[in-house]
Amino acid sequence: VEPVPRPFGRSDVATGEVGLWRYSASMPWLAPNAQVRLGETVTPLVRTECLGAPCLLKLDYLLPTGSFKDRGVAIMISGFRQHAVRDVIEDSSGNAGASVAAYAAAAGMTCTIYAPSAALPAKLSQIRAYGARLMRVPGTRDDVSSAVLVGAKTSVYASHNHQAAFLAGVATLGFELWEQLGHVAPDSVAVPAGYGSLVLGLRLAFEELRLAGEIERAPMILAVQTEAYPSLAQAWEASAHDVKTSGGAPTIADGIACRLPLRGRSVLASLRATNGLAMAVAESEVRDALRNLAHAGFYPEPTGAVSAAGFSRLARMGLLKPGGQHVVVLSGSGLKAGSAIAEILGATEEAET
Amino acid sequence: VEPVPRPFGRSDVATGEVGLWRYSASMPWLAPNAQVRLGETVTPLVRTECLGAPCLLKLDYLLPTGSFKDRGVAIMISGFRQHAVRDVIEDSSGNAGASVAAYAAAAGMTCTIYAPSAALPAKLSQIRAYGARLMRVPGTRDDVSSAVLVGAKTSVYASHNHQAAFLAGVATLGFELWEQLGHVAPDSVAVPAGYGSLVLGLRLAFEELRLAGEIERAPMILAVQTEAYPSLAQAWEASAHDVKTSGGAPTIADGIACRLPLRGRSVLASLRATNGLAMAVAESEVRDALRNLAHAGFYPEPTGAVSAAGFSRLARMGLLKPGGQHVVVLSGSGLKAGSAIAEILGATEEAET
Repeated sequence: VEPVPRPFGRSDVATGEVGLWRYSASMPWLAPNAQVRLGETVTPLVRTECLGAPCLLKLDYLLPTGSFKDRGVAIMISGFRQHAVRDVIEDSSGNAGASVAAYAAAAGMTCTIYAPSAALPAKLSQIRAYGARLMRVPGTRDDVSSAVLVGAKTSVYASHNHQAAFLAGVATLGFELWEQLGHVAPDSVAVPAGYGSLVLGLRLAFEELRLAGEIERAPMILAVQTEAYPSLAQAWEASAHDVKTSGGAPTIADGIACRLPLRGRSVLASLRATNGLAMAVAESEVRDALRNLAHAGFYPEPTGAVSAAGFSRLARMGLLKPGGQHVVVLSGSGLKAGSAIAEILGATEEAET
Repeated sequence: VEPVPRPFGRSDVATGEVGLWRYSASMPWLAPNAQVRLGETVTPLVRTECLGAPCLLKLDYLLPTGSFKDRGVAIMISGFRQHAVRDVIEDSSGNAGASVAAYAAAAGMTCTIYAPSAALPAKLSQIRAYGARLMRVPGTRDDVSSAVLVGAKTSVYASHNHQAAFLAGVATLGFELWEQLGHVAPDSVAVPAGYGSLVLGLRLAFEELRLAGEIERAPMILAVQTEAYPSLAQAWEASAHDVKTSGGAPTIADGIACRLPLRGRSVLASLRATNGLAMAVAESEVRDALRNLAHAGFYPEPTGAVSAAGFSRLARMGLLKPGGQHVVVLSGSGLKAGSAIAEILGATEEAET
């Protein structure tokens, strides 16, 4: 289901609210008394030059469960509560699973999460801590998507990649950026792209702002993948209108290790509509971006640093407007990937005393 | 050095700022151009009944590095920058170390962190990721405090437990609670207490609000320890004015595993002044509180759940004003303690498909 864009302007903002609930008017189908809240703040937007050029880091990893998924899941689970859903099922590389588990717990729903056996331990621990049932599936992220369909026959399938409410929630990222910049759209927004929900959510938000006359055009949306899972980048390179299954090499960006984005066609169309692009960066570029971020005091998970790697490359190539407002979305917390990050960055000097 | 309370009222709030920088006027010695920022938000204050009675959870684990320490460290490192400090050294059970490492990185300072060998792996990985030099010390938190003094001879000792600027930063927690409650002090605030910096910071904030005529009295400050490290609780029980070295048993609350709080005398005086108390909870109470929080969608580290265990016990005993505003501070992120939490809560149903 694709959400239909409706005009959304500054008079629609619920100024007494914090975080994503400021934009409830963009989701008029959601009853206020159904809202499930876990403390969604306006996430920080911090200026830095640590990526080789001036940009604005959007720290969405500081949402309640440690990833941007909370935006979509808060709205999706609220919608389920409104419809008296008691039991949800979800597939995820980990972040969406943790988020669904948390919001389902808060809403008093039982919850089952299908996740890859190879998902990061911290993500699996988190899912279990919230009291969800965890089903570990050997194989790729795509295998998990297949496995969940069997389980989903008896339960509400909460996939963030199938639910329009999820995208409406992710769209709050776009509204929030626009408000933080003083009711102006940034020039570009770089995001990590697996299934591409950040692309679709941002596209929706900026289209709604445009329809309300708040902005003239959407920012360039930059969808960044790794060379290990490059389906969107390959389609973009080929000027194709749909994606093909692609990839499977080892990657440090576990959160976007998917071979076939379910909504690839829509994602590509959104990139074209915003004068954006899809691209694939090397593992070494992700590592460098992660190190540069951490050495400036920021701590995304490796997947979250993929957007930073894309921004760095485009800035270096002179493809981004100098002096423009360029946003880099850091989508998940480094605290979910401690030992992986330690391995990636290598041991620094250490001594037993 | 003890900070001297000065009046701080609503006209002193920098309303155009976010997070702890709203209260810069309470730190007039800090030059605005020295501020080191990593995206400090107003942390959420969320109503829940998951602890057996209505309370307000203060999610300080959503600060930039995942713990409340960022409040104090942001101010302390900003102060160091103002004085052109280039190199800092700190001892920590992990959270303060990660915070100092991050803010030092952001300020371009070199940084050495002394931490217990047994600190949680995620905390050590985080410290190293920011580029700090990590010195692991066998033994207790107190042994780390001793070891750092040797290293500190050649470098600025950034201990949050020695620096007045750190406490002034922690005090922003009190100001923030007061603003979030509509310029009213809560009735009580429960905090985990190791060295007691949360107690001292809150006491400072509410005293400054009282001096400005904003509130009549400070909330009861409830300092919660575990039976494994009960120095403050024992002194309180004995009506003593100073603490004695105590404890050493295994505990899941690694962040407050210290035998002798350096400022124990001040902490006890602060508790008396606010009509508060110190208490020690059992490991099983911490575990229950952690489970109750997680099953409601909240994810503190075990140390962060100690305050919740204390609140639960006091509420059950009828010692907290019914219908009052009772705040429970969750001080550190569960994402720093994934495998420990999984062990503590036990495996829930799990299956390979």
